[in-house]
Amino acid sequence: MSDLFVSASVKPLESLDMLSPYEVERIRDRSDSGLYPLFRQCALAVLNCGSEMDCTAEVLEKYQDFDVHIVNKHRGVQLDLINAPASAFVDGELVDGIREHLFSVLRDLVYVVDELNDVCEGLTPGETLTNTVFHILRHAKSLRPNIKPNIVVCWGGHSIARHEYAYTKKVGYELGLRGLNICTGCGPGAMKGPMKGATIAHAKQRISDPRYIGITEPGIIAAESPNPIVSELITMPDIEKRLEAFVRLGHGVIVFPGGAGTAEEILYMLGILLQEQNRNVEMPFIFTGPAGSEAYFEQIDQFVKATLGEEASKLYQVVIDHPSKVAALMKEGLNRVTEQRKESGEAYHFNWQLQIPYELQLPFEPTHDNMAALNLHKDQPISELASELRKALSGIVSGNVKEPAVKAVAEKGPFILDGDPEVITALDKLLNGFIEQRRMKIDFAGYVPCFKLAS
Amino acid sequence: MSDLFVSASVKPLESLDMLSPYEVERIRDRSDSGLYPLFRQCALAVLNCGSEMDCTAEVLEKYQDFDVHIVNKHRGVQLDLINAPASAFVDGELVDGIREHLFSVLRDLVYVVDELNDVCEGLTPGETLTNTVFHILRHAKSLRPNIKPNIVVCWGGHSIARHEYAYTKKVGYELGLRGLNICTGCGPGAMKGPMKGATIAHAKQRISDPRYIGITEPGIIAAESPNPIVSELITMPDIEKRLEAFVRLGHGVIVFPGGAGTAEEILYMLGILLQEQNRNVEMPFIFTGPAGSEAYFEQIDQFVKATLGEEASKLYQVVIDHPSKVAALMKEGLNRVTEQRKESGEAYHFNWQLQIPYELQLPFEPTHDNMAALNLHKDQPISELASELRKALSGIVSGNVKEPAVKAVAEKGPFILDGDPEVITALDKLLNGFIEQRRMKIDFAGYVPCFKLAS
Amino acid sequence: MSDLFVSASVKPLESLDMLSPYEVERIRDRSDSGLYPLFRQCALAVLNCGSEMDCTAEVLEKYQDFDVHIVNKHRGVQLDLINAPASAFVDGELVDGIREHLFSVLRDLVYVVDELNDVCEGLTPGETLTNTVFHILRHAKSLRPNIKPNIVVCWGGHSIARHEYAYTKKVGYELGLRGLNICTGCGPGAMKGPMKGATIAHAKQRISDPRYIGITEPGIIAAESPNPIVSELITMPDIEKRLEAFVRLGHGVIVFPGGAGTAEEILYMLGILLQEQNRNVEMPFIFTGPAGSEAYFEQIDQFVKATLGEEASKLYQVVIDHPSKVAALMKEGLNRVTEQRKESGEAYHFNWQLQIPYELQLPFEPTHDNMAALNLHKDQPISELASELRKALSGIVSGNVKEPAVKAVAEKGPFILDGDPEVITALDKLLNGFIEQRRMKIDFAGYVPCFKLAS
Amino acid sequence: MSDLFVSASVKPLESLDMLSPYEVERIRDRSDSGLYPLFRQCALAVLNCGSEMDCTAEVLEKYQDFDVHIVNKHRGVQLDLINAPASAFVDGELVDGIREHLFSVLRDLVYVVDELNDVCEGLTPGETLTNTVFHILRHAKSLRPNIKPNIVVCWGGHSIARHEYAYTKKVGYELGLRGLNICTGCGPGAMKGPMKGATIAHAKQRISDPRYIGITEPGIIAAESPNPIVSELITMPDIEKRLEAFVRLGHGVIVFPGGAGTAEEILYMLGILLQEQNRNVEMPFIFTGPAGSEAYFEQIDQFVKATLGEEASKLYQVVIDHPSKVAALMKEGLNRVTEQRKESGEAYHFNWQLQIPYELQLPFEPTHDNMAALNLHKDQPISELASELRKALSGIVSGNVKEPAVKAVAEKGPFILDGDPEVITALDKLLNGFIEQRRMKIDFAGYVPCFKLAS
Repeated sequence: MSDLFVSASVKPLESLDMLSPYEVERIRDRSDSGLYPLFRQCALAVLNCGSEMDCTAEVLEKYQDFDVHIVNKHRGVQLDLINAPASAFVDGELVDGIREHLFSVLRDLVYVVDELNDVCEGLTPGETLTNTVFHILRHAKSLRPNIKPNIVVCWGGHSIARHEYAYTKKVGYELGLRGLNICTGCGPGAMKGPMKGATIAHAKQRISDPRYIGITEPGIIAAESPNPIVSELITMPDIEKRLEAFVRLGHGVIVFPGGAGTAEEILYMLGILLQEQNRNVEMPFIFTGPAGSEAYFEQIDQFVKATLGEEASKLYQVVIDHPSKVAALMKEGLNRVTEQRKESGEAYHFNWQLQIPYELQLPFEPTHDNMAALNLHKDQPISELASELRKALSGIVSGNVKEPAVKAVAEKGPFILDGDPEVITALDKLLNGFIEQRRMKIDFAGYVPCFKLAS
Repeated sequence: MSDLFVSASVKPLESLDMLSPYEVERIRDRSDSGLYPLFRQCALAVLNCGSEMDCTAEVLEKYQDFDVHIVNKHRGVQLDLINAPASAFVDGELVDGIREHLFSVLRDLVYVVDELNDVCEGLTPGETLTNTVFHILRHAKSLRPNIKPNIVVCWGGHSIARHEYAYTKKVGYELGLRGLNICTGCGPGAMKGPMKGATIAHAKQRISDPRYIGITEPGIIAAESPNPIVSELITMPDIEKRLEAFVRLGHGVIVFPGGAGTAEEILYMLGILLQEQNRNVEMPFIFTGPAGSEAYFEQIDQFVKATLGEEASKLYQVVIDHPSKVAALMKEGLNRVTEQRKESGEAYHFNWQLQIPYELQLPFEPTHDNMAALNLHKDQPISELASELRKALSGIVSGNVKEPAVKAVAEKGPFILDGDPEVITALDKLLNGFIEQRRMKIDFAGYVPCFKLAS
Repeated sequence: MSDLFVSASVKPLESLDMLSPYEVERIRDRSDSGLYPLFRQCALAVLNCGSEMDCTAEVLEKYQDFDVHIVNKHRGVQLDLINAPASAFVDGELVDGIREHLFSVLRDLVYVVDELNDVCEGLTPGETLTNTVFHILRHAKSLRPNIKPNIVVCWGGHSIARHEYAYTKKVGYELGLRGLNICTGCGPGAMKGPMKGATIAHAKQRISDPRYIGITEPGIIAAESPNPIVSELITMPDIEKRLEAFVRLGHGVIVFPGGAGTAEEILYMLGILLQEQNRNVEMPFIFTGPAGSEAYFEQIDQFVKATLGEEASKLYQVVIDHPSKVAALMKEGLNRVTEQRKESGEAYHFNWQLQIPYELQLPFEPTHDNMAALNLHKDQPISELASELRKALSGIVSGNVKEPAVKAVAEKGPFILDGDPEVITALDKLLNGFIEQRRMKIDFAGYVPCFKLAS
Repeated sequence: MSDLFVSASVKPLESLDMLSPYEVERIRDRSDSGLYPLFRQCALAVLNCGSEMDCTAEVLEKYQDFDVHIVNKHRGVQLDLINAPASAFVDGELVDGIREHLFSVLRDLVYVVDELNDVCEGLTPGETLTNTVFHILRHAKSLRPNIKPNIVVCWGGHSIARHEYAYTKKVGYELGLRGLNICTGCGPGAMKGPMKGATIAHAKQRISDPRYIGITEPGIIAAESPNPIVSELITMPDIEKRLEAFVRLGHGVIVFPGGAGTAEEILYMLGILLQEQNRNVEMPFIFTGPAGSEAYFEQIDQFVKATLGEEASKLYQVVIDHPSKVAALMKEGLNRVTEQRKESGEAYHFNWQLQIPYELQLPFEPTHDNMAALNLHKDQPISELASELRKALSGIVSGNVKEPAVKAVAEKGPFILDGDPEVITALDKLLNGFIEQRRMKIDFAGYVPCFKLAS
């Protein structure tokens, strides 16, 4: 991979030819209400795949001269790329998978802005959000009815150890041998490995239309560039809709080692599965990693037991260093999913029946006030506690590493959390564990917790 | 064809499985704002194909016990048809083409009502209407970019003489031999013949994906049931958008003998082609019929020359009794269309460049006031006169045959038209010609003109 | 259709590119052992489709200047056609279906001559012939395993009355509505009508891969040019293998009115179905024609009853003027075929189980000796009598109309037939009936029977 | 991978259903002239993929209880596998790629034995052999006309070092990114790596029909089990036809490090390219390996220069440790191939123009007499010397490691070679080099050359 920049014209996919002049104008619109700034940022992210950079700011800085134009030419439009990352090209030609991603991003941005009508008379706000997720997935042609549940969501860190990455490939290979498809957040690490392994297995099994679904959103796409194996790239409008897309489109979830972000995803999932209405909804949920990575899941498991109780810990299985067992368990789990959906007359292609608390559909902003308002006491339904814990975790991570939360903590002192001491202690222990395992980008030596218990 | 009724459950196409619960509710909604009444009427029309009835009221009367339910079943929804026309079934099974039409109608009704957002900031009302036509066609997957212009629109009467029908088949056959596709209003007669002929020719030419496009709208679908050869049925929201869809999607137009409706379509087309901005837009426009049907086109030709002048009559060619010549001329014309679009960088799949006067995009209501307000004088741009003549013709036809215009004329006397005497005379002659040729459902003996010149 | 000749170069299908230089040489070889003379004759026949000529000699005479060359060009070979019938071209371009037929003919000629190895150790001569039929069909990709029996063989005359032709279209339409495929001898008349009707019905039923199988052989192809709807043209080496291909590939048989040739085909079929070993083999066998054509089947029926007995007449059904009933009966019959094959573990794609007497696999030459050697007595198994009757009929037709049999009769007197008087009388009556109905090209007035009973 | 045995019934591909009863009998025939023994051996080899065993005898010994039956069932035939290697199954189901291979092997065995007619009147013996190779490839559907040259043959050892294997994957990846297809001998090591790398790259480039061609023959298939990525498995009747298939089907050749077998393949190629008639035939020929593997190619290069001269060494390029350069060079070379074939009007799908000396088409048996008869003098055309050297090398390898040549040498003393001393010395040095690099399975310590120069 060289560090050069490439400028090139990109032959459009049909989808671009099919834009109306009005839509083209929207994409060209460089004003604040226009689509151009967002499209430029996402396009750059897509073109930057294969790079090791995982920091949005760095990417934007390095490619500050990057530009993308939509120009009229030869009875249609084409994209002109200026100073694009050279790694996206082979002998001067854009890799086809990346070209496809460019137009996927465009498709979703235009659809969400222009065509999607969020107002649905008679629906609750939560139902409306779910409806939006459904419409975006349907428009992206990612809903395929009457196909037996086979989409396995893989979560985990994007910068994991080499042997952990190799392990995700092996698990992907075993899933692929069993005809299962992969859905991830579409960046590197645990999001790429399973797809790579599955690709080899799908070739061996002669699966002609394998699916490697990547679900991203504009805020993280630059830090987690989609890898070109992703055959369906979907850009959801925000992080919460992305999470909802995972659980409504996917049929089972595997979690590989990751960092605090992965822990948040686990809590999101527990917050849903612990809902009383979801008790009968089958959704296999497996944590797995290679020998040597046990600690991560032990930390999580202890934390879950300490805060949400034994009950909650029964919602997932932990399997260490056994890819074919993971895949066989997932396959069995998906058979139960199939049975359950048949019995309940539920669609295979979208999990309408799953109740997602409105709380989990809304973004959480980690201010001192919002953090203080969290209820981390045990005397509440555990699904609600799970939801609150997800927010707390999210806020603490921000307080540790993200501007402006770091700044706010520096100014106003640590977040004050209102909760039972054992909950707060468990949180503290979990975070410390991540730091010890070097799963968080943080200076261990001088670490001062950014939160404390309300007295 | 028996007169029995059939009740049956219809396995959904994927498109139905893909409806959201919210959309299903809309279709079930029997209130005035709901989709049910419209869907029931269109579904009945689709199922009534093959019948000879061409009167909406009769159809609705005969099948007053017809009903259609959307029911949940087996992990999805299905349509239950109650007391449907037996002619749509073979040995108890719904003909597949008809089943497809049912779901096409549903697709368009749901899209137009729910998803289509008519407000486009910064566009004129006319551009907005064009944009709406584009969106409906794109959503119906009828826009296929980068394919050389090959869509021939065929207009003409739905109840024509037997030898005229046979002739439309022969022309369709010759068009099909040359690889051309057919687009019609999708009913019987001149709308069915060309498709039937082309089907045989396409088979001989091994054309694997032939297109038989039918464009209808809820107001006429019951009177002109789509024939099941139609492979793409599109239901536009109203008659003006239907006409606009014809001229923006089609690449050339052939007119077979018809009645006053066909004459209106000719005037619509002339109103467009006479626009100064459209002078360089290629659009082959051919009138043709078998030996014995010359009179119809002679009447039209004389009328055009008398009102719009020689100039206007050069915009079309008349070919009598020569199917292979018609097809060869059309093929040449389409080559010119291709050249012109290439040169101007215009898309093949949608004729954005064609200027359609806003007047022609709007419905015309034939009241005494509106008729009196028409300007039928020659001292105006001929494109505008063409547009006014279309309205006059439309109004007169209503005054002759359609409640409530017939009633209004009975009460208030004939429509008073403000125009030059030769224009009014030409109109009178044209109408009389149609009646003599029995192309209008009218009692010749007692015919009293429903209009007269303002003194 | 003009009478001009066209010379043109034809882009090869892949199959031609794939010929080895050795095979190309074989086709170019104009010597007696070479393929050229046969290929030229078949190519001319294929190009002459749409013509009304049904006499091989006339066709050859008219197009005596026709030639076809295989030439090397642009990294491959192409066919150059010299003075070919203009009716095969549209605006100078060869109709694609006809182009396909040219290469189908080539495929079969090359395969039969070069690659097919007739010697199969351990097989009887009859089994070897059957094996050859199988190999040719498999090589032509006409055997498609695991598809439910749906191939309906249609037999009948190539020059039938206009209303009879219209009727064959209607029957084809009803068969097509029921998803059935058509297999015929691929010429005009009763061989073309069912395909044309089915094409329209298949379009309505959205059947994406309909089959119109035409089975011909070099001796008759010039007289019965394949119509371009035929989507699979198979050229068997001789008339007996052609008949065997019909009954092993097809799943049911419909007979339309025809002449003596059609009667022969009926006797061929009865000769098989009457075999003891075939008693349990399901094979629907239906005779049908429009009102006004009853006489033909009455003649046949009386003849069968008089010679082979009531038993034999139960093997077929006669349906007059009822296309949808014919199709519904055939559909039911094919369901029984499916059941029977399932039960017996028999393949769907080739009727291996059917016993065809070796006698019926061999050609019959109508000399006085061979005719005299026929056994037309009733005191033998009726399947054998059927087989003998087929030969007698074949010989008598030759004695009536074909050089050199006509000449031989003129010289040596009528054929002497050895049989029971009622059998001979029945034969006489059958032939006279055909002549009265003008189903044989013969001068009725001066007709003198060419056979008589041995005294 | 477990060591268990699995017995299972395998659903047939269509190809099996399409066998005639006669062909099925041939496969079941356990006599010497029957196909059963050969089929059993090849089937076992195919099922044993993924195993580390590369010794035919060991494989046959371990799976001595393996059996394969063709049984009639459910309207067709199926394969019953008894005591098959468990590694071919996932959760009890045969991997689909392996299932495909089973039927590919069957297809080729049946075709070669039954249908292929080797006698071609008028062809030389060499042309007949070439014709046979062509027919087998065409029957296997591996010839695809009119596709630009893109098949890269990869040769090299099946048991190479880990870093060498990793390198072959990288080269395959770079070839795949450039849209090139892979053809190998279909075993492990250098035959598997390029396919694996290309699979990932083809997925990224959205190449929907990538080709991974494996060419084997019954004598080596057991030692080099095809890996399941191979999408087209072709079993040639013998080693010489396999080599000819490589050079006529492939468009360029890459050689990775290997052993003496790889050296033989290089000499085979040089023997062809040095032919005067092949001077203008473009065929890129590249040797490559990772850093650390230079020695292998240096040995070869020195040997070629010492024996065949500088001229011969210009026919290949050596590239060390630079996958993208190898791929870019190959791509350029293939562009030249395309140009040359266009200019000469040569087919893309089969290299008819390449002259292969008859000597290279015939098997060589390494007896003392045959070895003594070799002409290893320099005073002859170098293409002939190359051919003789290939045989010498083949004989020496046999004398070193293969029964019965080892035994013959033990009995009769070393092979006596008749040649120039520098040729013999170069041979000796080459072999010693391989032994030092541990590229031959031989006991270095006690190595005594099995050949000497005739005095």
